[in-house]
Amino acid sequence: MQEKYIRWGRQKNCMRELTAYGNARKAEIGADRVFDFSLGSPSAPVPKPVWEAMREAMKRPDVHEKTPPAGLSALREAVAENLSGRYGLDLTAELVQIVTGAAGGLAVCANALLKPGDEAIVLAPYFTEYRVFIEGAGGTVVEVPPLADMQPDLKALRAAISEKTRLVLVNTPNNPSGAILSKKSLTGIANALRKAGERYGRPIYLLSDEPYRELCYDRKAIPAPMAAYENTILCYSFSKSLSLPGERIGYLTVHPQLTDREAVQRALLDAAVSLGYCAAPSLMQHAIVPCVGMTADITRYRKNRALLYGMLTELGFDCVRPQGAFYLFVKSPLPDAKAFSEAAKRYELLLVPSDDFGLPGYLRLAYCVPEETIRRSEAAFRALAEEFGRRKD
Amino acid sequence: MQEKYIRWGRQKNCMRELTAYGNARKAEIGADRVFDFSLGSPSAPVPKPVWEAMREAMKRPDVHEKTPPAGLSALREAVAENLSGRYGLDLTAELVQIVTGAAGGLAVCANALLKPGDEAIVLAPYFTEYRVFIEGAGGTVVEVPPLADMQPDLKALRAAISEKTRLVLVNTPNNPSGAILSKKSLTGIANALRKAGERYGRPIYLLSDEPYRELCYDRKAIPAPMAAYENTILCYSFSKSLSLPGERIGYLTVHPQLTDREAVQRALLDAAVSLGYCAAPSLMQHAIVPCVGMTADITRYRKNRALLYGMLTELGFDCVRPQGAFYLFVKSPLPDAKAFSEAAKRYELLLVPSDDFGLPGYLRLAYCVPEETIRRSEAAFRALAEEFGRRKD
Repeated sequence: MQEKYIRWGRQKNCMRELTAYGNARKAEIGADRVFDFSLGSPSAPVPKPVWEAMREAMKRPDVHEKTPPAGLSALREAVAENLSGRYGLDLTAELVQIVTGAAGGLAVCANALLKPGDEAIVLAPYFTEYRVFIEGAGGTVVEVPPLADMQPDLKALRAAISEKTRLVLVNTPNNPSGAILSKKSLTGIANALRKAGERYGRPIYLLSDEPYRELCYDRKAIPAPMAAYENTILCYSFSKSLSLPGERIGYLTVHPQLTDREAVQRALLDAAVSLGYCAAPSLMQHAIVPCVGMTADITRYRKNRALLYGMLTELGFDCVRPQGAFYLFVKSPLPDAKAFSEAAKRYELLLVPSDDFGLPGYLRLAYCVPEETIRRSEAAFRALAEEFGRRKD
Repeated sequence: MQEKYIRWGRQKNCMRELTAYGNARKAEIGADRVFDFSLGSPSAPVPKPVWEAMREAMKRPDVHEKTPPAGLSALREAVAENLSGRYGLDLTAELVQIVTGAAGGLAVCANALLKPGDEAIVLAPYFTEYRVFIEGAGGTVVEVPPLADMQPDLKALRAAISEKTRLVLVNTPNNPSGAILSKKSLTGIANALRKAGERYGRPIYLLSDEPYRELCYDRKAIPAPMAAYENTILCYSFSKSLSLPGERIGYLTVHPQLTDREAVQRALLDAAVSLGYCAAPSLMQHAIVPCVGMTADITRYRKNRALLYGMLTELGFDCVRPQGAFYLFVKSPLPDAKAFSEAAKRYELLLVPSDDFGLPGYLRLAYCVPEETIRRSEAAFRALAEEFGRRKD
């Protein structure tokens, strides 16, 4: 057996544990008495046209046939057209590879681009499994902590880059912080990677994980990493935008001017085959074709964001202003966020401590919950604030 | 980039090339004038209850939610019940892990069980991608050639086992040979692996890839590797039995008495997560629950098998008697099967040379084609036989 899996198996996963605890607790005292903010699973209804497209796809005689490894041509073309319009780049279908969910896409990238000894930089806080994908591919994780506003610390990034750096992984909007990478941050990252690429004589690729791209509340669209840096590989999933997390469908797109583009694309395709992917599920590929540019109605996330952020800041909690995704990132009143998460359980509040996200001292609250859950949780948060407010003084 | 992917990218894949050639040729002279036996894709209609179950699943509010990593409990239970009945073993849901197609399951096994330096034995002829999964996981492939009847050469198997052997991979019914492992062969393999396991003080696992299990024509069921050897991991896919190759849904099941069972199951689950699988596609998991024991109507494969085998043996071709799957394995009249495949193209016959399957000198003919294709190909095969029959004399 691979030692790495045995080691991972022994590691505790706070998120998984909290969800399991929550389910047991709900069975014990009733679901409406537990305020579960642990799970980042989309709650907006699947858009009607997606259901319609699924029913249409089921009429095709070839709906269950295996598609080419890079995906259905029609879907690759629809994605390319959508992205070209967004980014003002000439993105063709040949640059798009359909993948089995964003996790599949990230694992494919890590395996295609990293070899043992290579380093991948991740900007903290970051989604827990980035480490699993990078180490699984034989690479080494180098963490760069953020500034207080959750934008990247560019000085720390420059210091972290070495001749072994092959990849920098970013996530915008960010899980768990809700932050969106600013244009200034993207320019800073691009300049740092370009300079280091020249210095070491090989490109450093930016892998931009954007499943929450459409969940963006204060502006029309997020600043696009692909528009800022030519050595960008975009990883996208329809899980969040169309509320289809179980169906495992997304895409990778490489920038047209990516260094060694053909070799990289060949490696991405071969990595997918070598990891056993064959191709993404066929029915959903057919169904997504007419739905590429759509987004579920995210009004509920927008409302919940305002409600929860307003409520917690008023109660004196120190919150990162959430710009996108459906997470609120709250500074832990105790130095140990795990201890604070334990204390919150006494008020039936389930908050994920940030230690698993590579940045201790915070709690992640997923606000993709029924609005009622937030409203009914107010008394519990108030009691929690009073207990820890008093202690702080 | 990983050198292995660049190397694989450069390798020619006869199957892929032949399919591409065939498509071009069909466009040129008409699909009915090309006799394409290159593609092993199921042609039996998807059973009606599967469509019904898909429509029922689409009514569930949770149909698109991510399932647990090991799969839906209901599906794991249905699989366990079905297998217990088949094998007379007490197989519980805990022993079943739902995977994203058989390819996904095999890649997960290779990554979970092999570490660099480990050897995996494959019994030739074997499905091309076994090598990709094993080498992708850092393992080394050791090939064991078959006897003339395509049963394993047990003496060669015993000689191939070393202290580095971690895994033996079998495929029954076999792609490309159509052979089914006999009870005698299974007992021989089990004895060899048990003895070697004792000698080296660690278990050698048998990974049994059985996507064609239900495509078995001369008897009620194939002899089951899992019933013969306790250190067996079964890999199954619904692609062939339910004609759903595009939907990527299957399972792994470990024997209840598997050595180090808990650590192996933990590694299998962690490998799936690390390769980016999350969980198998949710809609299809729900839809398969009531369909676990079903098989599409395989009458057409049975008829085509008799027709093609009869026709080719009568024309003087030396054929392995096909017992299962939908492949006919034919001895090449020329020593170089690739050269013979090229010659066959002149008669618009597309036959896959066996070199990619780890056993030179044969051609694979997929007979999951319309019956008409076989009937209409007779003149071409006759002309081919005459050309090469004459040369042989």
